[in-house]
Amino acid sequence: MSTRSAGFPRGSEEFSRVLAFSDGLFAIAMTLLVVGIGTPMLRDGNDATELLEAYGDLHSEIISFFISFAVIGRYWVAHHQFFRNLRAMDYRLVWLNLLYLAFIAFLPFPTGVLGSYFENPISVASYGVAVAVVSGLEVVLFRHAYRAGLLVREMSEPVYRYGRGASVLPVAFMLLSVPVAFLNTIAAVVCWFLAVPIQVVLDRYRPAGAEDWF
Amino acid sequence: MSTRSAGFPRGSEEFSRVLAFSDGLFAIAMTLLVVGIGTPMLRDGNDATELLEAYGDLHSEIISFFISFAVIGRYWVAHHQFFRNLRAMDYRLVWLNLLYLAFIAFLPFPTGVLGSYFENPISVASYGVAVAVVSGLEVVLFRHAYRAGLLVREMSEPVYRYGRGASVLPVAFMLLSVPVAFLNTIAAVVCWFLAVPIQVVLDRYRPAGAEDWF
Amino acid sequence: MSTRSAGFPRGSEEFSRVLAFSDGLFAIAMTLLVVGIGTPMLRDGNDATELLEAYGDLHSEIISFFISFAVIGRYWVAHHQFFRNLRAMDYRLVWLNLLYLAFIAFLPFPTGVLGSYFENPISVASYGVAVAVVSGLEVVLFRHAYRAGLLVREMSEPVYRYGRGASVLPVAFMLLSVPVAFLNTIAAVVCWFLAVPIQVVLDRYRPAGAEDWF
Amino acid sequence: MSTRSAGFPRGSEEFSRVLAFSDGLFAIAMTLLVVGIGTPMLRDGNDATELLEAYGDLHSEIISFFISFAVIGRYWVAHHQFFRNLRAMDYRLVWLNLLYLAFIAFLPFPTGVLGSYFENPISVASYGVAVAVVSGLEVVLFRHAYRAGLLVREMSEPVYRYGRGASVLPVAFMLLSVPVAFLNTIAAVVCWFLAVPIQVVLDRYRPAGAEDWF
Repeated sequence: MSTRSAGFPRGSEEFSRVLAFSDGLFAIAMTLLVVGIGTPMLRDGNDATELLEAYGDLHSEIISFFISFAVIGRYWVAHHQFFRNLRAMDYRLVWLNLLYLAFIAFLPFPTGVLGSYFENPISVASYGVAVAVVSGLEVVLFRHAYRAGLLVREMSEPVYRYGRGASVLPVAFMLLSVPVAFLNTIAAVVCWFLAVPIQVVLDRYRPAGAEDWF
Repeated sequence: MSTRSAGFPRGSEEFSRVLAFSDGLFAIAMTLLVVGIGTPMLRDGNDATELLEAYGDLHSEIISFFISFAVIGRYWVAHHQFFRNLRAMDYRLVWLNLLYLAFIAFLPFPTGVLGSYFENPISVASYGVAVAVVSGLEVVLFRHAYRAGLLVREMSEPVYRYGRGASVLPVAFMLLSVPVAFLNTIAAVVCWFLAVPIQVVLDRYRPAGAEDWF
Repeated sequence: MSTRSAGFPRGSEEFSRVLAFSDGLFAIAMTLLVVGIGTPMLRDGNDATELLEAYGDLHSEIISFFISFAVIGRYWVAHHQFFRNLRAMDYRLVWLNLLYLAFIAFLPFPTGVLGSYFENPISVASYGVAVAVVSGLEVVLFRHAYRAGLLVREMSEPVYRYGRGASVLPVAFMLLSVPVAFLNTIAAVVCWFLAVPIQVVLDRYRPAGAEDWF
Repeated sequence: MSTRSAGFPRGSEEFSRVLAFSDGLFAIAMTLLVVGIGTPMLRDGNDATELLEAYGDLHSEIISFFISFAVIGRYWVAHHQFFRNLRAMDYRLVWLNLLYLAFIAFLPFPTGVLGSYFENPISVASYGVAVAVVSGLEVVLFRHAYRAGLLVREMSEPVYRYGRGASVLPVAFMLLSVPVAFLNTIAAVVCWFLAVPIQVVLDRYRPAGAEDWF
């Protein structure tokens, strides 16, 4: 059997590297945005009112920084929770993870546009698509890990189907928000958060053993 | 018992990841600021006097870089010392750590403003608030670790109360500096450093066993 | 025997550091480019058509980001696969790895030029040279590891020669693309991908034992 | 004995963190400079001659990137070699390491100035001072590790004095280059490299046991 196709187990230097690389990329994507805020230029440096007004002008950049940090941070926690369930990785998973990270690294762009043009349907729609792609790639990673036997222990078919469904849910609501954005941008944003209460309802029907995984 | 709620122990890949991610974020926040200095443009590239004057114009950016590095570096050491006392983490701690890191990543912005407008009460006040939030979140992290039983060994109630008090102290002085800044910015800066001598006095009254923790 | 010349084995803190440093550098080089995209400036922030047009103007920056991410990501996977085969490192390997990483860190520059001027022979040629240097340094790293006995187990001479040949192949096609670019830029880009089908043919003739390594 | 003052041994999560943080900071400082090169703006995007000329205009930025990468890379290797000799760290070493890293993170600034104004005595002198500070802090780190008993095994007094002398040598030549720069900038640059042949001569007189450390 080839060394390559055999993959590499939890505890190996190779397993740790994939996580270290992912963590570095997440940390950079989350920190870079502060550069976008920039120190305001004042006519009179000692004028408190002028600096307060300059802060007012920067409020959308500041809010955009914290929103972006929260969104990418939420995906980092999901990444942390997903890789916790793996006993090994193979190079297909490494490539899928890279594809996933490409969209994580890209996320600051649509978030920045959303921060600047919150009521523009295109900025709301493009943000919805970008987040849907990231969530969709989470499903692809999970599916591959299940099929290639990379999970730490046997996962029952109902638990797998439940987990996949729970991951597909945000993708569906994010894509639904795209046409809605052209009718009403506020309604589109409501769409993004609709997945949360439905998740709570879904949690009541989760199959036996699901609580060990998610 | 759910895998999720059980958390993950010191020595696991998951424990290391949270620290690696935090270290990456600290390192980026501390290094990014050098970009803000930028190479000066000279009319005559070989003129020593002109370059010396250009350095003079950049002195506030250079000082601001070293101040920011020192401030974030001090929090990194505190983060290093805090996580040293943990035997495990849970996902609530991971989320609180993310919230803490959001303000660490944000810190270069108020520091940059302070570096440019050192005598403006708003820049002094906003810096004081930002640092107070970071110090306040340190208290929240400590409180959760104590209550959720994540510390490496039993901590006595007096030692906990002493540690929490010592962490709240800088928050109090930072917030106190906000109204003071509108009277006198120098007095506000003095406020920031008042916590240091008081800490020294407080150290004499620390309860038995406190020296094993802080 | 000197500690220095003896190198450091897999599993040591020193072995991990070289990989952590490399991973950090790769992650930054891959994430930095998103800064280059930048939020577009709109006259009417709520105008969907205007934002759609602004996205159109940014399409080459967006494509350039994903190309650059894919190219550097492919080298990261190759780096991961190469270091997997090492039982130890010495400081000569550390220096060669630094030289290799210098060109990885440089890659965003020719990629950015290519993204902006896709039909300019100079941008196609300079990108070809930059990638040829990176691939060439992969060969140098592999050659040193083989000769200095740093591989995890004995590699047979035919397997070594096969591996070296497979690594030289992309260098040859990248350099071939340089003169071709001045005749036809599309033909030069075709050159870059010619290594792939030839690799597939070559794979059929690989010597016994090669599948354990590559 | 206090947990704090006892420090933390090689192999602990805390020991690894200091190295991971340092590696991240080095990697960022070395990669950030590529941002400074920037894609040139052409009037005719398909004009090969114009792009070639634009590359010519960027040659000092490109050279500056590689010089900076080499300089900081050389310090990273020295950092790697120094920490290899430690059996433990204490918080004084952590603080000294932070001070050292502050100047590593600052180094891109004087390097950028040097790249732009190579014949200006002030840019040559300021670069000499910055590098002298970094090398001087290396001596301080080494001195503390020796005195606080943090080395992996007993180091003889002659070996310590030899090692300290070898580290002070580049500081001396860097500081010597400062006055020389005002007479002749080329002579000042020659000064920087004078430490290399003298090091070779010094190596012949190194005391018994020195080869196990340096």
